[in-house]
Amino acid sequence: MPRPMTIAEKILAAHAGLDEVAPGQLIECQLDLVLSNDVTAPIAIGEFRRIGVERVFDPAKVVLVPDHYVPAKDIKSAEQAKIVREFAHEQGITHYYEVGCMGVEHALLPEQGVVGAGDLVIGSDSHTCTYGALGAFSTGVGSTDAGVGYATGRAWFKVPESLLFRIDGTLRPGVSGKDVILHIIGMIGVDGALYRAMEFTGEAISALSMDSRMAISNMAIEAGGKAGIIEVDDVTRAYLNGRVERPYTEYHSDPDARYERVYHIDAADIEPTVAWPHLPSNTHPVRESRHIAIDQVVIGSCTNGRIEDMRAAAEVLRGRTAAPGVRCIVIPATQEVYRQCMAEGLMDAFISANCAVSTPTCGPCLGGHMGILAAGERAVATTNRNFVGRMGHPTSEVYLASPAVAAASAVLGRIGLPEDID
Amino acid sequence: MPRPMTIAEKILAAHAGLDEVAPGQLIECQLDLVLSNDVTAPIAIGEFRRIGVERVFDPAKVVLVPDHYVPAKDIKSAEQAKIVREFAHEQGITHYYEVGCMGVEHALLPEQGVVGAGDLVIGSDSHTCTYGALGAFSTGVGSTDAGVGYATGRAWFKVPESLLFRIDGTLRPGVSGKDVILHIIGMIGVDGALYRAMEFTGEAISALSMDSRMAISNMAIEAGGKAGIIEVDDVTRAYLNGRVERPYTEYHSDPDARYERVYHIDAADIEPTVAWPHLPSNTHPVRESRHIAIDQVVIGSCTNGRIEDMRAAAEVLRGRTAAPGVRCIVIPATQEVYRQCMAEGLMDAFISANCAVSTPTCGPCLGGHMGILAAGERAVATTNRNFVGRMGHPTSEVYLASPAVAAASAVLGRIGLPEDID
Repeated sequence: MPRPMTIAEKILAAHAGLDEVAPGQLIECQLDLVLSNDVTAPIAIGEFRRIGVERVFDPAKVVLVPDHYVPAKDIKSAEQAKIVREFAHEQGITHYYEVGCMGVEHALLPEQGVVGAGDLVIGSDSHTCTYGALGAFSTGVGSTDAGVGYATGRAWFKVPESLLFRIDGTLRPGVSGKDVILHIIGMIGVDGALYRAMEFTGEAISALSMDSRMAISNMAIEAGGKAGIIEVDDVTRAYLNGRVERPYTEYHSDPDARYERVYHIDAADIEPTVAWPHLPSNTHPVRESRHIAIDQVVIGSCTNGRIEDMRAAAEVLRGRTAAPGVRCIVIPATQEVYRQCMAEGLMDAFISANCAVSTPTCGPCLGGHMGILAAGERAVATTNRNFVGRMGHPTSEVYLASPAVAAASAVLGRIGLPEDID
Repeated sequence: MPRPMTIAEKILAAHAGLDEVAPGQLIECQLDLVLSNDVTAPIAIGEFRRIGVERVFDPAKVVLVPDHYVPAKDIKSAEQAKIVREFAHEQGITHYYEVGCMGVEHALLPEQGVVGAGDLVIGSDSHTCTYGALGAFSTGVGSTDAGVGYATGRAWFKVPESLLFRIDGTLRPGVSGKDVILHIIGMIGVDGALYRAMEFTGEAISALSMDSRMAISNMAIEAGGKAGIIEVDDVTRAYLNGRVERPYTEYHSDPDARYERVYHIDAADIEPTVAWPHLPSNTHPVRESRHIAIDQVVIGSCTNGRIEDMRAAAEVLRGRTAAPGVRCIVIPATQEVYRQCMAEGLMDAFISANCAVSTPTCGPCLGGHMGILAAGERAVATTNRNFVGRMGHPTSEVYLASPAVAAASAVLGRIGLPEDID
């Protein structure tokens, strides 16, 4: 009988071929997926070449998504994308996504059924932790680890301690997954979960959609988390069934599993939240942020570029327009989300509201392209980081918020709630 | 009784307050519009400041369109756009177009009724000649001239010689305005109309839509033309009436006006045409270009980003997909064209065909962003220039073609005609 374990421990044990693991233990695991993007894949490919093997361990399990600087913003990014494209062709990579078929990696992989519950995934992108929302253990690694992963399909891990975040009760209307995770990061700080597996549970989490859950898991890294896991339930199953391409495995934490710490949060205490510059932990209620005038709004990214996010934004923007002087940039995270926005009439709402709608790209989130800020400019963004200079000039400012708050802020010209309009 | 004059001469004379002008004469004219974009306005604004006047000559006649690198691709372009934005605000510029309301300048101004027949327009962008299709004399100038224009509303001109291009007969099916102008540039060369006013006339021109005519006038500069004018007819009037905001004036060349040269072209001789690298004059029939494999297609720009162009592309792409390995980037030239693409279902065709659809921008046309080419890559583009490195790496190649040919090439993965598919 193995020791009681958390979901994170169970997934790691299973992939290490062990009956049990304990926090702090160093293990070597078989990987289900190794992911890279156009920024990190070229470096990982270089490491792969240095190892000297000819072929990746499994062309169906190395996933390459050029999404950061594509469609190419300059010659350098075009050359980076070309390296990825040619490697994908050479290796017969199944899950390579070209411009026009692609999307932001962490929105794309769940949507396309590439990742499933119980998977162990590494990706050379810090927001790889997103797939925790599907009940997977997924985590960001450096490009060297990714390159070794291409070659061997294996990686070493130190088994992390687990933290449990139990959110009981019912979220208030207008409070989304984004507000939940901002609230938590504000509470514990940007190193509050350093190298810990965060596990989110409770009635409030159970009541959330997959899109909202992905926003939560996505930002686990912003508290330093190694993973951000939500156990599989009927919502997960409804999402995965008929979508995920491989059989998936459900893991549930044992009732007596050991957590380093358990946080109890009352859902009613969470309100629409904004993270002011320059840390995701610098959170304030929207109601205390209404004086902040803005120049730009960005609605998109691996955090909040999914269809639920688009719907929330469109609901606010429909029949209204962005305030004079505010550029509102909407970036559906994948081609499929874009298509769905059209089918549901959301795109009409965006265009009529004077939004610039971009083809899928990470774009401005990381200061890549498609809406970079000049000196002193302020943006409200549904993205995940508001570090100094993240979206452009070092004196520009990024305020992180939910899609509904971002859309309302676009209409108001300052930070606010949908109910502040009119 | 003044001497017989061409349209170009009549417009220049009228704006110089003269009864007549003759080629070679130096004149000073009152301007109807002075246009700049985000690349050239900052320089022109600097020149304006050096003159030392406080206000532009007329805030309704200085037009500022940030379109080249917006939404901003980097900090530098964000700073450029900010200079334009702040100047527009300071001067109360009526025709300033922000991200989300904007479009590619030479598609936007006619669409928004800012320019009309008989106008004299300078713009610090070489494709300002586009408005010749409306019966205006419009021409590209340097940013210094534009800055002086902001201050004074005046500019000097040497009256150009006029060349007449008479295209009789009926264009073959599948031959568009783009093919006409490529044919002409191939015939006379990139300096074939140096500092000349090109005038396009004949049955084939009369039968063309405004969008196709704008593609023709747009590329006058690619033959060195100072202007590219088409006389006002019922098609022009139908376009202008109810759209153009100021009264407009029709000018018609006198029957005995003197042209430096008259070119007679049989419409039946014009076939779908591609300009191979690295000059717009390096034209070849599509039927002799079928062996050329491509990596990217760009459908958009001030040459061919209008609704007729989108319709032509969608007709080919509907129910098909871009060939594997080909990135197809579609850029409606204005927010209004984008909206119309949605309303007509063209956007569905693009997205289903795996096209990346961008918010309006000049983007890749000038190697700006949104689809830059890596070393050795080849693009078919509906844009206007295929100079060395124009769309990216110095070893990349651009082939200029019509929207129908570009769309067909995307599906085929090589240059071809719609009828080559299947």
